Amino acid sequence: MCRWLAYSGSPIMLEELLYKPAHSLIDQSRHARLGVETTNGDGFGVGWYPDGHQDGTAEPAVFRAVGPAWSDRNLHELAHCVRSPLFLAHIRASTGTAVQQTNCHPFRYGRWLWLHNGAISDFPVLKRDLALAVDASLYPYIEGSTDSELMFYLALTFGLRDDTPGAVERMAGFVEAVAAGHGVTDPLQMTVAVSDGERLWAFRYSTCRASRSLFFSTSVQALRALHPDNPVLHRVSDETRIIVSEPLGDLPGAWNPVPESCYALVRDGHDSIHMFQPAAP
Amino acid sequence: MCRWLAYSGSPIMLEELLYKPAHSLIDQSRHARLGVETTNGDGFGVGWYPDGHQDGTAEPAVFRAVGPAWSDRNLHELAHCVRSPLFLAHIRASTGTAVQQTNCHPFRYGRWLWLHNGAISDFPVLKRDLALAVDASLYPYIEGSTDSELMFYLALTFGLRDDTPGAVERMAGFVEAVAAGHGVTDPLQMTVAVSDGERLWAFRYSTCRASRSLFFSTSVQALRALHPDNPVLHRVSDETRIIVSEPLGDLPGAWNPVPESCYALVRDGHDSIHMFQPAAP
Amino acid sequence: MCRWLAYSGSPIMLEELLYKPAHSLIDQSRHARLGVETTNGDGFGVGWYPDGHQDGTAEPAVFRAVGPAWSDRNLHELAHCVRSPLFLAHIRASTGTAVQQTNCHPFRYGRWLWLHNGAISDFPVLKRDLALAVDASLYPYIEGSTDSELMFYLALTFGLRDDTPGAVERMAGFVEAVAAGHGVTDPLQMTVAVSDGERLWAFRYSTCRASRSLFFSTSVQALRALHPDNPVLHRVSDETRIIVSEPLGDLPGAWNPVPESCYALVRDGHDSIHMFQPAAP
Amino acid sequence: MCRWLAYSGSPIMLEELLYKPAHSLIDQSRHARLGVETTNGDGFGVGWYPDGHQDGTAEPAVFRAVGPAWSDRNLHELAHCVRSPLFLAHIRASTGTAVQQTNCHPFRYGRWLWLHNGAISDFPVLKRDLALAVDASLYPYIEGSTDSELMFYLALTFGLRDDTPGAVERMAGFVEAVAAGHGVTDPLQMTVAVSDGERLWAFRYSTCRASRSLFFSTSVQALRALHPDNPVLHRVSDETRIIVSEPLGDLPGAWNPVPESCYALVRDGHDSIHMFQPAAP
Repeated sequence: MCRWLAYSGSPIMLEELLYKPAHSLIDQSRHARLGVETTNGDGFGVGWYPDGHQDGTAEPAVFRAVGPAWSDRNLHELAHCVRSPLFLAHIRASTGTAVQQTNCHPFRYGRWLWLHNGAISDFPVLKRDLALAVDASLYPYIEGSTDSELMFYLALTFGLRDDTPGAVERMAGFVEAVAAGHGVTDPLQMTVAVSDGERLWAFRYSTCRASRSLFFSTSVQALRALHPDNPVLHRVSDETRIIVSEPLGDLPGAWNPVPESCYALVRDGHDSIHMFQPAAP
Repeated sequence: MCRWLAYSGSPIMLEELLYKPAHSLIDQSRHARLGVETTNGDGFGVGWYPDGHQDGTAEPAVFRAVGPAWSDRNLHELAHCVRSPLFLAHIRASTGTAVQQTNCHPFRYGRWLWLHNGAISDFPVLKRDLALAVDASLYPYIEGSTDSELMFYLALTFGLRDDTPGAVERMAGFVEAVAAGHGVTDPLQMTVAVSDGERLWAFRYSTCRASRSLFFSTSVQALRALHPDNPVLHRVSDETRIIVSEPLGDLPGAWNPVPESCYALVRDGHDSIHMFQPAAP
Repeated sequence: MCRWLAYSGSPIMLEELLYKPAHSLIDQSRHARLGVETTNGDGFGVGWYPDGHQDGTAEPAVFRAVGPAWSDRNLHELAHCVRSPLFLAHIRASTGTAVQQTNCHPFRYGRWLWLHNGAISDFPVLKRDLALAVDASLYPYIEGSTDSELMFYLALTFGLRDDTPGAVERMAGFVEAVAAGHGVTDPLQMTVAVSDGERLWAFRYSTCRASRSLFFSTSVQALRALHPDNPVLHRVSDETRIIVSEPLGDLPGAWNPVPESCYALVRDGHDSIHMFQPAAP
Repeated sequence: MCRWLAYSGSPIMLEELLYKPAHSLIDQSRHARLGVETTNGDGFGVGWYPDGHQDGTAEPAVFRAVGPAWSDRNLHELAHCVRSPLFLAHIRASTGTAVQQTNCHPFRYGRWLWLHNGAISDFPVLKRDLALAVDASLYPYIEGSTDSELMFYLALTFGLRDDTPGAVERMAGFVEAVAAGHGVTDPLQMTVAVSDGERLWAFRYSTCRASRSLFFSTSVQALRALHPDNPVLHRVSDETRIIVSEPLGDLPGAWNPVPESCYALVRDGHDSIHMFQPAAP
C-alpha cells in the first residue's frame, strides 16, 4: 500500500508539493490517513521531466532510494533545487517484495514513467505467466521483482506508447484472465499514473470495484472563485493539475475523487475523465 | 522517541522477543502504542552477550543498521540463529540527529552496552559543554552525534564501571546543571538500559517527573500461578526478566511499570527497584 | 568478476578465514590479484550452517549487504561471534546488474546454498529463455536479477537436490544450447560452490575452456609434513578443506588449482576431483 | 586518501567532468593512479551552486551518499540533469572514521562548501583539543566525525568568511600547534577546496612539505594554441578552470601541479597562485 502524486502545470520546485503542503507526500510517508498502512517507509522515488522541454522529447530523470522518504536528505536537497512542469512521486509500503531501488517507483522506459498503488493478488502464483507475456525485446529491461513494474512492461507490450488507455485496459484484462486461469479471485487493485512528458494519465480500477482512493485537484480558476483571498491560488498557474492518492490539505472544494473504474487525462492544461474497461489483449 | 527492550535469563533465541510476541519490538517499529511517534523507522540495533560466558568477561556483539527494523532481512536471519542470556534491542525514531549507524543504539564501550529512549532538550545548545566534560581518554571513542551516546560517555566519565547507578545519577545531575546554566528548562527525558554482561540496570527519570513509559516483567513463578495453563510460561526459566518501553503483549499481570524516578537492577535472576536521584558530579 | 571461499571442517569462527589470513577475502575485496577487477565492492554475503547440526537437516543462515565488505561493521561483528563447520562467503563485482541485496551471493533455497563467480555472456539476450525454463514451482523464489541466481534455479529445476553434479552439468549444457540458438559464443564462465550442509561441491568450467581461477587447500596432514613448525597447521583439524577463487596466503604447497572442467567434492573430511561435462537437460 | 575536483566556468552539466573524461572522477573511484589507495569507495558527494545565481548569494545544493560512486544510479541521474557554473565533487577513501553521509564531502555551512584530501595524524589523540577550539556558535553544526569537517569548522572559527586564505593558514597553524603539544610529528596533510559561490580556493600543504598531488588546468586559450584541432577546447568557455587531485586525461600541457605550500584562487575567470604559510590563530 503506497501513496503517490502526479503534477502537471507551470514549472514548480518539487518541494512545493513534496514538503510544503500541510499533508504533503513526505508527511504521508509517516502519517497516511486513507491507506491500509499509515507508514510508507519502504523506499520512495520521484521522476521529473526537465523544465524547458515540454515538447515530449526529453527523457525524465529519476531519483529513487530505499530508506524512508521522511529522513532522506538528498531528496530534500533535490526538491529544493529541481523545477519541473511534470513530475511523479511515490512512497512505498512493500506488500512483500524486497526493499530495493529497482522496486521503487516510478519505473522508466525511454520517456515513459509509471507508478502504481495497489497489488496483484497471489502475485507469486501468477508472476511467471505474466512475465512470459512480456515482449522479448522488453523483457531484459525488467530490473526489479514487483507486480507494479511487471504491469508496466505488460502495458508496454500491449501498446502503451500508441494507445495508452487501451494498453492499460488490455494489461488489466490480461491480469484478470491469467488470475482466472489460476483460480485467483479479485486479482487487481490499482491506481496508476503514467506519462510521456506531454500527457498524464491516472487510472483508478480494481476487479472488485472497490478501488483505492484517488483524487484530482479542482481547476485553479474554480478554486479562486471559491477562495478569493487565498494567496496560494494566485501564485499557481491556471493549467495546474495535481492527482494524489490522498489530499495534500483540507482546502474545501479542492479535491475531487476520480470515479470508480475511470481514468483522468491531463493534457495542455485541460483534464478529462473517461471510463476504464479491462479488455482482452 | 524510541522503543527498546532488555532481556536477562536463560539463553534464548533473539527472535523469541524481537519477532514472536504479539506486540513484539519489530511490530512496535511500525505500530508503537505508547510512544510520541507510532513509527520507529530511523535505524535499529541489538547488542548481545555470548551464550556460555555469563562470567561478565566477554565483550558483547552489536548489530546496527539504518533502515527500518521491520524490513531488515539480516536482523531476521540473526534473530533466528543467535542465542543469548542477556541482550538489549532498540528501534530508533530520530529527534533530529542524522540517521546513521553510529547513532544507532546500543552503544558499546568494552563490555558495556547502553541504550536510551528520550532526549536532552535544546541539545544543540548544550552539546558543547556536555562534550567537553567527557574524559579526554574516552572522548575519541564517541563516534556519533546523539545525546544518547554523549550521556553514555558522561556516565562512563563519572564512574559507570565502578558505581553504575551513582554514575548515571551524576550524569543526570550534570546535564541538569549545564541546562540550568543555559536557561534550558526540563532538560532530561530518559529511560536507559545499561549492562556489563552480568548485571542489567534500567533507569526511568525525567526532570519534569513525567517520564516515558517503562515496564518490567512479573516473575515467572508469579505468572505461572496466575496463568497455570499458559504453555509459554512453562518454557521460560525462573530467572527470566524482561524490561521494555511498552509491553510485548496483553497477558494480564505480566507487566509492571517501573515507578517514576526509579531504576531496576537485575542480577543473578533477581530484581530490585531503587530510587533514582540526580546528583552533582 | 567476484571472489569467494568455501570452508568445510571442524567448526571455526568466520573471522579465521574472512579477516585473519594475509590475503583474506576481506583483503581481496580491495586488492584481488587474480581477478579481472581488483575491486570487489558491489556487495557481499556469507551463508553458514549452524554448529552442532552436521546432519544436513539444518537450514543455513545468510547475511548479505550491498556496501563493500571492507567497511561493513556488522560483518566484522558477525565474523567475530559466529562459529560454523561449513560456510560460503562471496564478495561481488557487478557485471552490470543492480547492486542490491537480492543480487548478493550466496543464494539459498531450503538447506541449499549457491554462489558463483563468472558470467553468462549476453545475458540480457538469453535471460528470458533461461527464465522460462525454470520450473513453475521454483520460479516465484527468484528474487534478484543476476545470471548467478538464475543458474541456481535452473540447476534446481534439473535435479540439483538429487544429483548435484549432473544437475549442474545439465544447467551448463542448457545455457550453452540456449546461447547457440541466439548465436552467442563462449556463453558460460563459472566457478560455482554449492552445498546442502553435508557436502560441498566446487565447479570450475567455461565454454572456452579458459576458466577463472579456483584452488583447493592441500590436506592438513600433508601440509604439516611440509611445514612441521607452522603453529597454525597444528590448530586446524585434519578434515579442514578450503576452496577459494584465489589463495588466502603464500604458504608453499598449500593451494592446488582445481583442474579445468572439473569439480571438487568435499564430504566427511575427504575430497575428490571429478570431470565436469555439460549435458543436455 | 580521497580524490576530488572543483570546477569554475560557464555552466556545464556535472556529467561532463564526473563521467565523460577518460580518467573521470568516477573512473578514479575504482582506478586512482596517484593516490595511496587505488580504490575510493567509501562514499562520495557533490556540491553545486545553482545556474543563474553567480552573484554569490545562493546556497549550494549537496548530494552525498555512502556507497561507491561508481555504482550510484542517483548520482548518474543527477549528473545528467544538473548544470552548474561552480561545483565540487569528492570520492572518499576512509582513513578510519565511519562510512556515513555526515562524513562525506563536501561539507556545507551557509553558502560555503569545503572538501579535503589528506589526514590529520593521530587524529583521535588531537580531536578533543581541536573540537574545543571551535566557536561555540558553530559547534552544533558539526555533524560527522572526520578530521576534514573539523578543519572546516576551525577555519570558519578563524575567519574563513572574511579572510579565506588567512583562516586556512591559521587553521593549519593551530593543528600543528596542538599536535606539537601532544608530541605528534608531521600532523597535517591536506589538499583543500573551498568556495563561497563566487570564488574558489584550492590549497596544497603538508607539514612535511611532501603534499598530496594537486593540479589545475591550463587556460583554455593556451590549450587551444597547443591543440588547435581539439574540438573539446572550442566548446568550453575561456574562463573554465578545473582543479583536481589527479588529471582527468592525458592531453599534453593541460594540467599543471599546484606548487608545494601554495594555493590557487579562481575568480571572475582568472586564476592566481599564492604562497601558503601556516600561522598562529
